[in-house]
Amino acid sequence: MEESRLDFTVCRLGECRIPSPMASMHFVHDSDHVLYDHNLDRIREDLQAGVSPPCFEMAGPREKIFFDPSGLRCGIVTCGGLCPGLNDVIRAIVLSLYHHYGVCSVFGFPYGYEGLSSRFGHEPVELTLEYVARIHDFGGTVLGSSRGPQEVADMVDTLERMRIGILFTIGGDGTLRGGQAIVGEALKRGLQLAVIGVPKTIDNDISYVQRSFGFETAVTEAGAAITSAHTEAIGARNGIGLVKLMGRESGFIAAFSALAYNDVNFCLVPEVPFTLDGFLKELEERLDRKGHAVILAGEGAGQDLMQKTNQKDASGNVRFGDIGNFLRDRINAHFKELGKAINLKYIDPSYTIRSVPANAHDSAFCLLLGQNAVHAGMAGRTNMVVGDWGGAFTHVPIPMAVSRRKKIDPDGWLWNTVLGSTGQPRTM
Amino acid sequence: MEESRLDFTVCRLGECRIPSPMASMHFVHDSDHVLYDHNLDRIREDLQAGVSPPCFEMAGPREKIFFDPSGLRCGIVTCGGLCPGLNDVIRAIVLSLYHHYGVCSVFGFPYGYEGLSSRFGHEPVELTLEYVARIHDFGGTVLGSSRGPQEVADMVDTLERMRIGILFTIGGDGTLRGGQAIVGEALKRGLQLAVIGVPKTIDNDISYVQRSFGFETAVTEAGAAITSAHTEAIGARNGIGLVKLMGRESGFIAAFSALAYNDVNFCLVPEVPFTLDGFLKELEERLDRKGHAVILAGEGAGQDLMQKTNQKDASGNVRFGDIGNFLRDRINAHFKELGKAINLKYIDPSYTIRSVPANAHDSAFCLLLGQNAVHAGMAGRTNMVVGDWGGAFTHVPIPMAVSRRKKIDPDGWLWNTVLGSTGQPRTM
Amino acid sequence: MEESRLDFTVCRLGECRIPSPMASMHFVHDSDHVLYDHNLDRIREDLQAGVSPPCFEMAGPREKIFFDPSGLRCGIVTCGGLCPGLNDVIRAIVLSLYHHYGVCSVFGFPYGYEGLSSRFGHEPVELTLEYVARIHDFGGTVLGSSRGPQEVADMVDTLERMRIGILFTIGGDGTLRGGQAIVGEALKRGLQLAVIGVPKTIDNDISYVQRSFGFETAVTEAGAAITSAHTEAIGARNGIGLVKLMGRESGFIAAFSALAYNDVNFCLVPEVPFTLDGFLKELEERLDRKGHAVILAGEGAGQDLMQKTNQKDASGNVRFGDIGNFLRDRINAHFKELGKAINLKYIDPSYTIRSVPANAHDSAFCLLLGQNAVHAGMAGRTNMVVGDWGGAFTHVPIPMAVSRRKKIDPDGWLWNTVLGSTGQPRTM
Amino acid sequence: MEESRLDFTVCRLGECRIPSPMASMHFVHDSDHVLYDHNLDRIREDLQAGVSPPCFEMAGPREKIFFDPSGLRCGIVTCGGLCPGLNDVIRAIVLSLYHHYGVCSVFGFPYGYEGLSSRFGHEPVELTLEYVARIHDFGGTVLGSSRGPQEVADMVDTLERMRIGILFTIGGDGTLRGGQAIVGEALKRGLQLAVIGVPKTIDNDISYVQRSFGFETAVTEAGAAITSAHTEAIGARNGIGLVKLMGRESGFIAAFSALAYNDVNFCLVPEVPFTLDGFLKELEERLDRKGHAVILAGEGAGQDLMQKTNQKDASGNVRFGDIGNFLRDRINAHFKELGKAINLKYIDPSYTIRSVPANAHDSAFCLLLGQNAVHAGMAGRTNMVVGDWGGAFTHVPIPMAVSRRKKIDPDGWLWNTVLGSTGQPRTM
Repeated sequence: MEESRLDFTVCRLGECRIPSPMASMHFVHDSDHVLYDHNLDRIREDLQAGVSPPCFEMAGPREKIFFDPSGLRCGIVTCGGLCPGLNDVIRAIVLSLYHHYGVCSVFGFPYGYEGLSSRFGHEPVELTLEYVARIHDFGGTVLGSSRGPQEVADMVDTLERMRIGILFTIGGDGTLRGGQAIVGEALKRGLQLAVIGVPKTIDNDISYVQRSFGFETAVTEAGAAITSAHTEAIGARNGIGLVKLMGRESGFIAAFSALAYNDVNFCLVPEVPFTLDGFLKELEERLDRKGHAVILAGEGAGQDLMQKTNQKDASGNVRFGDIGNFLRDRINAHFKELGKAINLKYIDPSYTIRSVPANAHDSAFCLLLGQNAVHAGMAGRTNMVVGDWGGAFTHVPIPMAVSRRKKIDPDGWLWNTVLGSTGQPRTM
Repeated sequence: MEESRLDFTVCRLGECRIPSPMASMHFVHDSDHVLYDHNLDRIREDLQAGVSPPCFEMAGPREKIFFDPSGLRCGIVTCGGLCPGLNDVIRAIVLSLYHHYGVCSVFGFPYGYEGLSSRFGHEPVELTLEYVARIHDFGGTVLGSSRGPQEVADMVDTLERMRIGILFTIGGDGTLRGGQAIVGEALKRGLQLAVIGVPKTIDNDISYVQRSFGFETAVTEAGAAITSAHTEAIGARNGIGLVKLMGRESGFIAAFSALAYNDVNFCLVPEVPFTLDGFLKELEERLDRKGHAVILAGEGAGQDLMQKTNQKDASGNVRFGDIGNFLRDRINAHFKELGKAINLKYIDPSYTIRSVPANAHDSAFCLLLGQNAVHAGMAGRTNMVVGDWGGAFTHVPIPMAVSRRKKIDPDGWLWNTVLGSTGQPRTM
Repeated sequence: MEESRLDFTVCRLGECRIPSPMASMHFVHDSDHVLYDHNLDRIREDLQAGVSPPCFEMAGPREKIFFDPSGLRCGIVTCGGLCPGLNDVIRAIVLSLYHHYGVCSVFGFPYGYEGLSSRFGHEPVELTLEYVARIHDFGGTVLGSSRGPQEVADMVDTLERMRIGILFTIGGDGTLRGGQAIVGEALKRGLQLAVIGVPKTIDNDISYVQRSFGFETAVTEAGAAITSAHTEAIGARNGIGLVKLMGRESGFIAAFSALAYNDVNFCLVPEVPFTLDGFLKELEERLDRKGHAVILAGEGAGQDLMQKTNQKDASGNVRFGDIGNFLRDRINAHFKELGKAINLKYIDPSYTIRSVPANAHDSAFCLLLGQNAVHAGMAGRTNMVVGDWGGAFTHVPIPMAVSRRKKIDPDGWLWNTVLGSTGQPRTM
Repeated sequence: MEESRLDFTVCRLGECRIPSPMASMHFVHDSDHVLYDHNLDRIREDLQAGVSPPCFEMAGPREKIFFDPSGLRCGIVTCGGLCPGLNDVIRAIVLSLYHHYGVCSVFGFPYGYEGLSSRFGHEPVELTLEYVARIHDFGGTVLGSSRGPQEVADMVDTLERMRIGILFTIGGDGTLRGGQAIVGEALKRGLQLAVIGVPKTIDNDISYVQRSFGFETAVTEAGAAITSAHTEAIGARNGIGLVKLMGRESGFIAAFSALAYNDVNFCLVPEVPFTLDGFLKELEERLDRKGHAVILAGEGAGQDLMQKTNQKDASGNVRFGDIGNFLRDRINAHFKELGKAINLKYIDPSYTIRSVPANAHDSAFCLLLGQNAVHAGMAGRTNMVVGDWGGAFTHVPIPMAVSRRKKIDPDGWLWNTVLGSTGQPRTM
């Protein structure tokens, strides 16, 4: 198994010698770990072979910390697309720094990594308790965001000049890679600069992290669009409701939405290829049988069916063909050719979904993520993200987190349950 | 004033001789009217000239009715696009027929006027109390809908064959014209067939009717999209949120949404022309000043700026150019040319808005509309719609209702208040 | 008719000589009026008798204003219980003063009339554009509120010392009477002080005002409680869901909620007395017939059935017996005596309803109310409230507004429709 | 550690010999287990001692099943208080029986165990696909519910007479104990009757089950009440908002709500005792410092402070003193004594919370719970509930599930985080 060769070791800036100002009675010990693999047979094998089974370092407050809170200055950036809970994480970091550690100098760098670059002239915002008091009532990010990297030396210049000790980066793959580059440059310069990531992926596709913030909210919000698609579909003869959801490389939002909202008849995800002919034939049969159909497509589904553009966005992501428009046009063309009148309504709720405030679940989750990010940073960890594994919070090295994408297993229980719910065939 | 020549007279099938089975103590008398024009000077002039000031017939239950409830059979059709409240109106009509008049044979014709046509073979649905008990919990229409007319003689054949006494048509302009044609054909054949319309226009653009069902719900629902657009706009450097709302010929939804949600910076409606250059210049200035902008466009806005397609949809409406895509492309092109990076997100929430269930306001309103439609039909009125004027329910002849569109007055208080709220200039 | 003797005359501080800084093309003229009574026969009688039919002064911006905007200082107080839209009205007043008239000195007096009293030492808050920018996203009032009057001379001392020209009072009956007292004291002192009220009554019971802000939101919010009551009722054998809603002297919220949500089987309002025995007998029959029941009670319903306490709250309102607890106890006792097991759940959602933010309808309405209050004040009107009549905004003298309560007519269309919806008998 | 002596063995009716009709490629093997304790040191100790570390049997479809689907008849009961997701679970069981196994005879027994008793004469409902199609759109339970046990022999008579093979019981502790009794009686009679529980506890307090359905929805819904309490509190001088939430013996709903909604200043739970004097003193200080306070109380909090009633409800649960009314009265009395005017609003949203439909998270979760209950029953398991452990579904013997309550650890991370969020002292 390839994972057995994974390196779970988290980088540290140095020894933790300073007593934590937290009065908590429940400090986490450096020996506390979270089992990566729960399979008893494999654990037994490892132990018999004298090998320690793979484990994550457990997140949480340490009794001794690395940074001296007095005089410590911290920074926060939010990068990439919007995701429910960004403001909750910002707020949790600021509150934890103030209340747990007495760190009162926290700066928000505007518009993602742009805010660290001298090219744009964005002024950092001082994040006071007043400033963050009610930001979680609103979606989006009060710091603003941007896509794409900035020149590393330039960013580290800014951090050095501002004497930032811990930089919290909230973003996806690209953002984490940017954080890794900052760690490297800081190391070269001999700076005591920790970079702690909070993984932001509404698609829930970061590896070695079971749950990412915003995902539950996204599935909840997707319901409105799916219900509308169903209402439109049954409101017309041969009505078809088509909904595109987020999910570039992993279709978790679409899959869980299909489970949560029972009106979906076809769920298309990037992990499960299909042919256009096969899909259209099934759609025809569904219409003949039931008179309407609801289709859910993750944005990365069916990319092989469309002409590649090879364009990239500012984050360096390949610009995907638009599966929603593609399916709409092909379905309409197909039934026109067949001489069968249909009535297709296409709904793309992506911006509406990603810009709402976090729901209760994500709000509590973001609070804990932010606090654990602060604990990790204060304990001198760096080049890592805060993860979630089997219900516990973990430290995950950035190289491990970005090593591959988490995806739906087409043979696993999730996809099997989706197939059972939608009634669509396993292969189309 | 042209309205003075309007004919407020409502057609009647004959004299009302049958005592109403309703125990209501508050019957409306045929002499009860609702003043059309509240201007005291004009009323005085009319009275001095011996002319009766223009008045609507007042809606409501009559002491004597035209149709004998025993044996009466009624039909309902819903036509055109979805609108919040359709199921509420259907349900109100059925409940009122059963409970107020003891009429138990009510049929729903599926998929709009298609359901009256022999060409499609749709079977009518018997609308029982059980059938309609909870339909108002769902958006859309349980009867299904379709656009466009069907052959009149064919439809009247169906109505005659099924011995329908009152046909309730819930739809917009085209639907009402179709109802008028049915009235004409029925008259020719000497049928005692009443056609009572409940005007359905989410745009609230039917003349001589101050308020149409679904409008308040639509404005309420528009809020989610506008808030998202604002969140996206402030979350990016030079962020622009663009929202397209319903409003083919009248921009009431956009205008009231601009009042209800204060984040709108530009509200574009069909009634107020603008030049692309003027608009882009204002947008540039807004971005320079504030760093973000939210634009709201009614779908009929700026049609003169786009190439005409001359295509029509099944209802016979000219297919409009898509102002949302048009503005998105032109704004992006403009700022690309200027070398200024912007970040535009375009949201089209139309299907999501129109397919939700009615909110409390519309739900109560639909109940009253449906009941008054039944009272009108039982009293032998025909070729009319139920209207709302100054807080009272009225009978409006179909020819009057379809004679022209209700529109925003660019010099009136509504548009002036919108301008004050958005801060946009009067002319662009 | 007693109303014919009503005095519609609005007090003015003096002549309007200053040109309005508003660029509006649509000034309202002092001759513009809104007909009070739309009955054509009565209008004809009045005109024939040479009497002007009763009319409200029309609200809106005047071409000439009374106060010189430069140097004008204004104050705002919110009094009494919370109501959705308070922050919207505050915000609308501030924005209108700034943007329409250039008045930049606006003060919020904390905690209602307490804020005007020297006894409490509350510091006025300067209401800047930044301060009010997003307050409407939250329910309640940013100014805080309190019940009850303060010493008039003391309050006018404060206003005089702070050189307030216009005081906007947002509150109910008691608040308006307090405003009237301030007007009287100011007159005695020869102060040029205008008092403009925005009537706040979630019960919608202020006379000569057809619609008050917050009412639509309240009916909308009541739905959650009613749906819960129904779900609980049908989830148990002989389940009874009992909901108490606002409505001290007028049951409009309960009545409209019964129309908007069809699950209500008994709607009890202050205007329609009932006997406990009659009600319990009907409830018994309903349970026998259907196995469950949903009861909606306005808080002022059935007060004659309970022992009077004669206690008063700080606003001087008689403290009502709690109809919810009373009915719960009596229903439980009754069926216990009968030996019939029931399952009653009592829900009192009042605080949850009144503290939500305004919905879209009320938000737009509050914007217009606030603006018209400012226009009235700038035009030197005083001792008046902004009203709504037949879709137009009006000036209503405070003495007229507080002269009596608006109530449901037990013989009118509203109550008849409620009876039809619930199926309850006319008398119990 | 006491858990080491727990018996994880799940009862089976007999050997599974019938090939499953499911085409799934991913059958679960009887050797698949879910580790109970993730602590590596304890696992190592166990393995070294030659003991198998404690494990749950893994839930899921088996390749061979016990019951012959042809002719199998199943029953469902829902017992105890309402909980979001009941209809989802009912629906999931019915759909899985039909679609996965071809079992078409499924009966719903009305009003909990009453429906199995001959004393009440409730007729079982046949649960067809049509019947369950949209039941999940509504809260509550379509089957109705009741509290308390019925005579066991009588219930088994009914099951025997109706030839029920699998009885699905959805309920809490008492319900599970009832199920256990049915298993015992069936065994005595030699009936092949499986009893599979789906644990229903909105409080999330069933042991050895990490997550129970409805909990996330409850925390989400609690937000409205908390926000209202906060709005009321800041809207009055010395305003206090008091909210009672569910949580008889475990305060998880209150604790997670305090994390999700940041406005809570005091969170009181059954697991953490406090003295009234200590609490009132802290409340005083909070008011002096901030002028308002929000208090959240789980219903089982502070029971030792109130006089015991020793009354029990129909389920045999001790009737708790009402902590909400108690605190309201004591707080009011305390400040009255102090001569300090306060303004306390008490909100009890319990019925509104528990009667809403499941949110997206719970809806998907209920689907999986229901399916796994069906898989367990078909595989001949009995006297067990479907559990959730570390993200996997498990089989938990009923005796284990009811052996003790899951509670908040006052020294653990959850309570520490709550203390950090509210700012309340560890001991009061």
